[in-house]
Amino acid sequence: MAATGTPSAASRYPAGGLAFPHRDLLGIGRLERHEILYLLDEAEQWVELNRRSAKRVDALTGLTIINAFFENSTRTLLSFEIAGKRLGADVVNMHAATSSVKKGETLIDTAITLNAMRADAIVIRHASSGAVALIADKVDCPVLNAGDGSHEHPTQALLDALTLRHALRARGQAGDDFTGQTIVICGDILHSRVARSNILCLTALGANVRVCAPPALLPAAVEAMGATPFHSFDTALAGADVVMMLRLQTERMAGQFIPSPREYHHLYGLTLKRLKLAEPDALVMHPGPMNRGVEIDSDVADLLDRSIITRQVEMGVAMRMACLDVLTRRQRGVEGWNDLPTSGKWP
Amino acid sequence: MAATGTPSAASRYPAGGLAFPHRDLLGIGRLERHEILYLLDEAEQWVELNRRSAKRVDALTGLTIINAFFENSTRTLLSFEIAGKRLGADVVNMHAATSSVKKGETLIDTAITLNAMRADAIVIRHASSGAVALIADKVDCPVLNAGDGSHEHPTQALLDALTLRHALRARGQAGDDFTGQTIVICGDILHSRVARSNILCLTALGANVRVCAPPALLPAAVEAMGATPFHSFDTALAGADVVMMLRLQTERMAGQFIPSPREYHHLYGLTLKRLKLAEPDALVMHPGPMNRGVEIDSDVADLLDRSIITRQVEMGVAMRMACLDVLTRRQRGVEGWNDLPTSGKWP
Amino acid sequence: MAATGTPSAASRYPAGGLAFPHRDLLGIGRLERHEILYLLDEAEQWVELNRRSAKRVDALTGLTIINAFFENSTRTLLSFEIAGKRLGADVVNMHAATSSVKKGETLIDTAITLNAMRADAIVIRHASSGAVALIADKVDCPVLNAGDGSHEHPTQALLDALTLRHALRARGQAGDDFTGQTIVICGDILHSRVARSNILCLTALGANVRVCAPPALLPAAVEAMGATPFHSFDTALAGADVVMMLRLQTERMAGQFIPSPREYHHLYGLTLKRLKLAEPDALVMHPGPMNRGVEIDSDVADLLDRSIITRQVEMGVAMRMACLDVLTRRQRGVEGWNDLPTSGKWP
Repeated sequence: MAATGTPSAASRYPAGGLAFPHRDLLGIGRLERHEILYLLDEAEQWVELNRRSAKRVDALTGLTIINAFFENSTRTLLSFEIAGKRLGADVVNMHAATSSVKKGETLIDTAITLNAMRADAIVIRHASSGAVALIADKVDCPVLNAGDGSHEHPTQALLDALTLRHALRARGQAGDDFTGQTIVICGDILHSRVARSNILCLTALGANVRVCAPPALLPAAVEAMGATPFHSFDTALAGADVVMMLRLQTERMAGQFIPSPREYHHLYGLTLKRLKLAEPDALVMHPGPMNRGVEIDSDVADLLDRSIITRQVEMGVAMRMACLDVLTRRQRGVEGWNDLPTSGKWP
Repeated sequence: MAATGTPSAASRYPAGGLAFPHRDLLGIGRLERHEILYLLDEAEQWVELNRRSAKRVDALTGLTIINAFFENSTRTLLSFEIAGKRLGADVVNMHAATSSVKKGETLIDTAITLNAMRADAIVIRHASSGAVALIADKVDCPVLNAGDGSHEHPTQALLDALTLRHALRARGQAGDDFTGQTIVICGDILHSRVARSNILCLTALGANVRVCAPPALLPAAVEAMGATPFHSFDTALAGADVVMMLRLQTERMAGQFIPSPREYHHLYGLTLKRLKLAEPDALVMHPGPMNRGVEIDSDVADLLDRSIITRQVEMGVAMRMACLDVLTRRQRGVEGWNDLPTSGKWP
Repeated sequence: MAATGTPSAASRYPAGGLAFPHRDLLGIGRLERHEILYLLDEAEQWVELNRRSAKRVDALTGLTIINAFFENSTRTLLSFEIAGKRLGADVVNMHAATSSVKKGETLIDTAITLNAMRADAIVIRHASSGAVALIADKVDCPVLNAGDGSHEHPTQALLDALTLRHALRARGQAGDDFTGQTIVICGDILHSRVARSNILCLTALGANVRVCAPPALLPAAVEAMGATPFHSFDTALAGADVVMMLRLQTERMAGQFIPSPREYHHLYGLTLKRLKLAEPDALVMHPGPMNRGVEIDSDVADLLDRSIITRQVEMGVAMRMACLDVLTRRQRGVEGWNDLPTSGKWP
């Protein structure tokens, strides 16, 4: 496990808007290492703010943020809604269950509608991979991907990285990135946008990433992404500094890809006994919501000083505040950001 | 197509609160021509504001607006919610799906409840014609009709007029009103509150309105409202300056009033070929959400410079801001408006 | 009916934070008489504010209030949402219908999640008695019980007391409390959290409380709580100053506990004729939503000067504002309240 010195902000990323020259946040796959670091560094101020009693700023006052969730997600929606409100924006939720989509309207027409209402940022969750990019292509404002099918969930990967960096720094083990850290991601890698975004993010930040899943749930593509595949969880855990468990989508998994939740727990559940195979102080993560007793045991999930699952939720709000703040700087005319185009195609 | 000069505001409508001496906005049928023009003129400032980055004012700060939607409608609800928030109000949505109405409460008791919570304006959508007026009768604050059964949808007609006036003025074709313009409204005229409100609004503003529908969907009453009925869309289109298509409620139409969506498209769908029967630069409108390929073809819906469908959505927010602003002036004590009663029956 | 003088605030309750030394509002059963009076007195300022046009203050600006309703309730949710917004807080609703609870997450994990997002107050409604206390045990911020199973609904009892005190004072009949008042609560006492909280609150404030229900719906425990049980509504009404009707949960009652709604109305419905058995000017209350014609007749519900049902709704917002204001004073560092711990277990 390496600890590197922290370079000054000035040397770490380009000046002004070049620090993050994207209009949208569609996936980690489109970001450079220094852009990821920039978002992580920006989030720190919001971690601090959120720990105060009065935690609203007026940075985004007068801006309209629309959360368009075509797929239910309580915690991600809450997290984005709170993030937007704490930044002073007007936040409006569009619920899929009651949306015009049900009346036969196309996804693109819905997107054009939100855009015409002069949204300043649109946060989208959709069950189809690529749907968010499709929408981004049709609107004039920043689009944030809050999870699209089995493609990407970039704010989850960013908040995971922020949480992990906080925890490692508290132990004096991390500098800017995760060089020297061995991180195991275990679960349904095939369908998981969380896994995909995390592999991309963690490898970009220098970590040694191992992925572990039953054969049917482990795509060959992970190697091309820089991760090492494992079928045996026990083997994967040897020497691990961090164990990141994925939620088992029991409702769609059972019978098709795995014999039963119980069988799954036997082979891939994180028990206290199994955790002993990892490094002695290995950290435990989970994106939530947890199936206690399935992919993770309660005594692991609640381990003091080692489970950072609750911190992930906390960092989620701060990370989303950073993304909303950074992505709306152009239209807000923030010094150093306003000489870039405010709409149209971006890298 | 006529273009008239624009008289000064002072000569156009009565001074102060007499410019709009209504407590509620229940339907276009209750408005004078100059009152409609007043609302359109008032909306202009909000069109401008919405095009800025910071688009919140404090005109309605501290007021509580309740959106009580007993019938689902994503886009109208979003539009009103955004309008209220941009004006600085506290906006609260009451969703029918989870409402006390399900517990057997009467509509009037629900209205009395919202009123007792000291709402400063209530926006209501309801599946029954007349339900909104019934509620307005029981509360002390302004009530805005966001669509009641097949009766009226006044803000839709107002936003359509605002959009059309913008488009015609950009071409140098319109002054205050639509004198000389021939406008075709095509679709299910019988059940459409959008059609009804638009006929009333457009004729009040001087347009020559034609309505077109299959015989079973064309009520005789349209003639009394000043519109000319047509069964043949092709005939109705001859000389038309504007074509306004209505959404086909496919879920309730098929089999009962029309043979099939396909048949409907054949006779009443707006295709590029059919549009050629109208004036060469005829404008195309649709209240949304569209059934592409049913009542309107995609290549028509997306026509540059002629389809103003997306503008309708944009103008919708501005128009609703104007209505909320104007209707709450009495209780806010706005100069010139505060000498009028703030509750009770209004014209 | 007695009228007592009003002692000065200074003599009535302990100074500063000792006036209400609780972190949470879980039930009336945990409160002292002077603490109840303190909340009632605090609510008066919000009654006044809510009657103005501009009714937003900045007392809770920057605080995040999460309404976590695991059980549907339109009016209680609206009331809390409006209360929080008028105090200037950022209010976020978590709807059970779309919540992670459905994905198998435990209630405690949901609570920990809300807490990790740095909520400053959590308002909870849950179908299980005790669920709210369970959550309160796991979070760091004030928790307000908005109804848990058949246990308690403390803000309902408080708003009822506030409404009643207003009405009696307007008649010159009440001082601080309800000494000398005879109050009948009629309905499904067994399952009603409203009844339970009201019995506790009204007896604490000196009232002579009678409860009336069919034998199967009248628990023996009411006597231990200081109320007098009745099976005959007619007998219970003799000499009553106030009649508080409970909503009949027709959906779960019929056939099991009562023969039919019609039979229920015959024996326990409040008719104009039956009301004559009470004191000549007896007041009528109902927590809503009403089943008109079942537990209460329309001509009783709408009695001028005697039915204070609509006032209950109005006072509800003010009462909830008082609770949210008082409970967040410690974390806001309000003078006199900030020397007390801001988290952890409280009495």
